Amino acid sequence: MTQRYGAVTIIGVGLLGGSLALALKARQLTDTVRGVGRNPETLEKAAALGIIDQEYLDPVEACRGADLIVVCTPAGAVPAMLDAIQPVCEASALVTDVASTKAEICEHAARTWPAPLRFIGSHPMAGSEKFGPEHATPTLYEGCVTIVDSNPAAAEARGEVTALWQAVGARVVAIEPALHDALVARTSHIPHIVAGCVARLAASSGDVRPMVGTGFRDVTRVAAGRPELWRDICLTNRKAIAEGLEALERDVADVRRMVAEGRAEELDAFFADAQEARGKALGES
Amino acid sequence: MTQRYGAVTIIGVGLLGGSLALALKARQLTDTVRGVGRNPETLEKAAALGIIDQEYLDPVEACRGADLIVVCTPAGAVPAMLDAIQPVCEASALVTDVASTKAEICEHAARTWPAPLRFIGSHPMAGSEKFGPEHATPTLYEGCVTIVDSNPAAAEARGEVTALWQAVGARVVAIEPALHDALVARTSHIPHIVAGCVARLAASSGDVRPMVGTGFRDVTRVAAGRPELWRDICLTNRKAIAEGLEALERDVADVRRMVAEGRAEELDAFFADAQEARGKALGES
Repeated sequence: MTQRYGAVTIIGVGLLGGSLALALKARQLTDTVRGVGRNPETLEKAAALGIIDQEYLDPVEACRGADLIVVCTPAGAVPAMLDAIQPVCEASALVTDVASTKAEICEHAARTWPAPLRFIGSHPMAGSEKFGPEHATPTLYEGCVTIVDSNPAAAEARGEVTALWQAVGARVVAIEPALHDALVARTSHIPHIVAGCVARLAASSGDVRPMVGTGFRDVTRVAAGRPELWRDICLTNRKAIAEGLEALERDVADVRRMVAEGRAEELDAFFADAQEARGKALGES
Repeated sequence: MTQRYGAVTIIGVGLLGGSLALALKARQLTDTVRGVGRNPETLEKAAALGIIDQEYLDPVEACRGADLIVVCTPAGAVPAMLDAIQPVCEASALVTDVASTKAEICEHAARTWPAPLRFIGSHPMAGSEKFGPEHATPTLYEGCVTIVDSNPAAAEARGEVTALWQAVGARVVAIEPALHDALVARTSHIPHIVAGCVARLAASSGDVRPMVGTGFRDVTRVAAGRPELWRDICLTNRKAIAEGLEALERDVADVRRMVAEGRAEELDAFFADAQEARGKALGES
């Protein structure tokens, strides 16, 4: 049994928000999608692409009477957005977000939202180096793992938000926000930062273009992500990222010494362990 | 005008050697492919797949009377292999290799091979985390950049080796071996090591499987490569890799401090620069 939504408000009509709108429309799960943005041109583009039905510059206006509200701004802007819209949200409205860090946002909502808590943070792990409504697709969430806040104070809203993501094809996992942030620091945020450092190192070495193969392309792909999005991720997950980076620096320095000193057996063991670690993290071993 | 080869000897019938054999056969550029390996089962597999016509356990036997000899062993084994086969190579035979590091190998050959130098080192940048003859494909080298030694002492052999790679679809670039090694340290070897460290960090954090998205998969893909191959690459390019890793460690530590201290503008600039650096390295900007 899938919930239908009368009016859906998407605040921030980019890749994630636009794809959710298209997925809900493709399954006829909504009557109207209201799109909110600061840039009228982006809204017009989203409307022309059939992603949204109504264009709003004011999120407060767009949330009045909405059944489902999805905040798709960068992480740093979510708490203030929740403060702004909360007074006009219907008591029955379901509210969620799609930001890549969850502790700051979920703790803010738990502190400020009236009971019963109708905001449940989500993190659909459907990131891409592409952004903007022009890359939105109704299939983005198919098979995509989506994390939702396991807060026991919001069991009912969690059931609804779980049904929402499942309806568009996602696999939903409920996790405590602080643990989520500690883990994604290591599976997403740190890989992203390191990919950026790898790209900078290569580009600082003169013209490396003939020497660039698929390996470099793969390792650095995420470095093409939007700077303001990643800045916000870093600022809202500082401790876990800084701790993980420090551990990574120690590991890189260890390998550097193995290389400099030509320690063959230890290098063998490092590469074998790295291979196994990847399989383990991906659930392939 | 494309050269035809009577007998081609491939020493090490894995992804690279097997794909070259298939590509030459698909274009009818050889009569016979002799495959050399230490493992009779791998040779039988390669023969069953139509990659090789004759199986040899002894590289010296396989090189007698061959027109083209391609050494496809890991980098560390190439110099000793050249020493072993040189006495039986025909004066007209063209000899090359496919290892990912070039200075040690090319300097060894320049020192030990009789004039005119008929060995020209190659590095087809067609790496993959797949290996073994079962992944060989006649199209592997299509569009693939292949580096060849620019040594002026071997201009004629270089012309021939260039024609070989071009015949199977590669784009050939001639570069001085030491410069090649310094650049690939930063575009390939260091990205590989860092991908391994990223995989190890994630796997050390308990069960991260639900948190693993396409970003992690991309960043760490190369970490699935063969340990003995990458150990050899590290051991034959120690100085350039160690220097580059040290520069990378400094950059990661800088970003870590920006994160720990919440320096928003510097993080913005870092991510914007990383994006630009990737585009520059890939020749997209």
